[in-house]
Amino acid sequence: MNAVISESIEEYMQQLGRRAREASAELAMAAPGVKNEALQAIAGQLESRRETIREANRRDLEQGRADGLDAAMLDRLELTDERIDAMIEGLRQIIALPDPVGEITDMDYRPSGVQVGKMRVPLGVIGIIYESRPNVTIDAAALCLKSGNASILRGGKEAIHSNQAIAGCVQAGLKQAGLPEAAVQVVETTDRAAVGALLRMKEHVDVIIPRGGKGLIERVAAESRIPVIKHLDGICHVYVDDQADLDKAKAIAINAKTRRYGVCNAMETLLLAEGVAETLLPDLAAAYEEKGVELRGCPRSREILPSMLPASEEDWSTEYLAPILSIRVVPDMEAAIEHINRYGSHHTDSMVSENFSRARRFLAAVDSSSVMINASTAFADGFEYGLGAEIGISTDKIHVRGPVGLEGLTSQKYVVFGDGHTRP
Amino acid sequence: MNAVISESIEEYMQQLGRRAREASAELAMAAPGVKNEALQAIAGQLESRRETIREANRRDLEQGRADGLDAAMLDRLELTDERIDAMIEGLRQIIALPDPVGEITDMDYRPSGVQVGKMRVPLGVIGIIYESRPNVTIDAAALCLKSGNASILRGGKEAIHSNQAIAGCVQAGLKQAGLPEAAVQVVETTDRAAVGALLRMKEHVDVIIPRGGKGLIERVAAESRIPVIKHLDGICHVYVDDQADLDKAKAIAINAKTRRYGVCNAMETLLLAEGVAETLLPDLAAAYEEKGVELRGCPRSREILPSMLPASEEDWSTEYLAPILSIRVVPDMEAAIEHINRYGSHHTDSMVSENFSRARRFLAAVDSSSVMINASTAFADGFEYGLGAEIGISTDKIHVRGPVGLEGLTSQKYVVFGDGHTRP
Repeated sequence: MNAVISESIEEYMQQLGRRAREASAELAMAAPGVKNEALQAIAGQLESRRETIREANRRDLEQGRADGLDAAMLDRLELTDERIDAMIEGLRQIIALPDPVGEITDMDYRPSGVQVGKMRVPLGVIGIIYESRPNVTIDAAALCLKSGNASILRGGKEAIHSNQAIAGCVQAGLKQAGLPEAAVQVVETTDRAAVGALLRMKEHVDVIIPRGGKGLIERVAAESRIPVIKHLDGICHVYVDDQADLDKAKAIAINAKTRRYGVCNAMETLLLAEGVAETLLPDLAAAYEEKGVELRGCPRSREILPSMLPASEEDWSTEYLAPILSIRVVPDMEAAIEHINRYGSHHTDSMVSENFSRARRFLAAVDSSSVMINASTAFADGFEYGLGAEIGISTDKIHVRGPVGLEGLTSQKYVVFGDGHTRP
Repeated sequence: MNAVISESIEEYMQQLGRRAREASAELAMAAPGVKNEALQAIAGQLESRRETIREANRRDLEQGRADGLDAAMLDRLELTDERIDAMIEGLRQIIALPDPVGEITDMDYRPSGVQVGKMRVPLGVIGIIYESRPNVTIDAAALCLKSGNASILRGGKEAIHSNQAIAGCVQAGLKQAGLPEAAVQVVETTDRAAVGALLRMKEHVDVIIPRGGKGLIERVAAESRIPVIKHLDGICHVYVDDQADLDKAKAIAINAKTRRYGVCNAMETLLLAEGVAETLLPDLAAAYEEKGVELRGCPRSREILPSMLPASEEDWSTEYLAPILSIRVVPDMEAAIEHINRYGSHHTDSMVSENFSRARRFLAAVDSSSVMINASTAFADGFEYGLGAEIGISTDKIHVRGPVGLEGLTSQKYVVFGDGHTRP
């Protein structure tokens, strides 16, 4: 930190950027075995420095309590032994994944005689900006490393000591494997100006991934001069069609809402076709009540179940992240699609229906990163999709949509093989 | 245009944006046959309005001459009968391409029992900003339409009458096929403020593609609040290794430079391994001289061929787009890779070598959108790569690299099929 104090934040960040760019060339060429060796060494460091990490984390927790952080934030900040175990297990899982870099696909002979295909390559340098969970430091470092990208990690100021302790493990692990230490750099200053500087370093950073609350993500998206892969809201819907199997509908509607409340793939609005609303709503309401879910209904749904609170226009575009559910009765699937595309956040939306033609239409017409038929929105997750790991869920359309794993951190270049071929 | 005059440019552009966003939902769902019908109808309109188009073009040419445009610019502006034929032929080629929208791939059963795959979908609304070639209006409209995207096209002010005449054909064709006219909108004002307004309409436009000179592209990249797919320079290299087949080397070095001078995939710097420089340089220089190519050499190459002009540091990062070639002798492939990654523009670079291990290394280490072995850089082209058509060549890393065809104008969303599946 002494070096930091003596320089301006801008210069400090520029230096991180230059070092990352240099390291990225080496990292892009690192053999899969070497990258895995580094990940293994980092896991070993986490294990052996467990007490140092917990001690650093205790300092953050103390400071957090002194600063009046709420219980939820303190919980996210805490590194228990189980969470350190989970970090180590996460590394093991990433080690086990196939290396995405260098994969050559679609090699076809063209009429000219040259062979043309694509090679998967790292993006270069990835900047990750996150908030209070210190385990993101390991997740992000590992995913970037495995995908051959250098990374600059900027965690929340609440977790600064924990993040520095984890950074120590990463540095030691990289060194053990003979990889450049600048392959993963954890920003050492808590000055907010560092974020602004990072978002301007177009020449050194290829993509920015913000992880955290909506405020952070909106700030990053508005300020960044570098492409951003981001996840805004998760306003997810389940639509129960009048040709739904009602048992499936109940199971999915309950699971999508109540499995976990604070996650982005939780259902926030349930849409019921007029044809099934009267049959389904009382049963569902009873089940939700049992779980303590507050229901807010449209006028038609309150005719069926007057005990529900009324939903306001604002409810349709609210991500509750809480045991609250808005319910709307719609005339048919087309109205459901319209509602979803208008009020939703293009994250994950599911229809329950046995009708084949409607399934085809729903899949094509709903403009979301995950569109499901007869499955709970809770499945929208990198592990469930087989990505092996996930750096986030993109609600953008450019580059990558939905859960982002190793492949989302890469790009493809063209490779052309000839035998002295020239173009007429 | 009356409507335009009575409103502010900002409001006018906002209106185009809203209409495009609305049309994009319809277009995303348009059947392949309907889109092809529209393309066919547009081709018919171009044919039947040929005289109107040429007349409008003559007005642009007259104005251009009055404004003192240079011969090259007037040439780019001119729509001869052959160029109108080429526009019609271009449409036919795009009609013949497979429709990218709705393709579902990688459907795998996951351990949970749900089936997960990806569906190819349009990006939404694409803004294209281009300069004096009016044929871009048809190319861009057709590629966006076929890929299910609404488009807002902003051509150069020099081509305003030609572009409006072509827009008339597009509008009539869309109408004939029953597609919304706002599927393709050509900006009617030449006010530069329209570009600024377009680049700020994040809520209505999903991606911006600038096509034209470096000045335009740099302005767009700097100003845009929307993701940009862009092509900056084409500083392409051929490196002749000391294990090259010299006949192949000569053929490729001549073809890559002299096939066409003003194109982005033309070689601008020739790198020769020390081991072959003395043998190869005199022959190559004679061939270049015959074609009228000016050679600018590094000190070592001028020892071999003192008649060459000296190359300055600036030459290594210059895109000549002209019969000028810089030549540098390098000790080995590693030095060539370093030169390419440092001075090149990450566009297209080729190595001539028979050495298998070096080919593997060169392919992985050169950070360019196309990397070639024993082939001329002139092959870097959407048609040669089998894309069928090309909206440009991306030198970016995010979303798409290299020649951009229909697939580059799409994204993929996840689709999940279940049978009432819930997540434990």
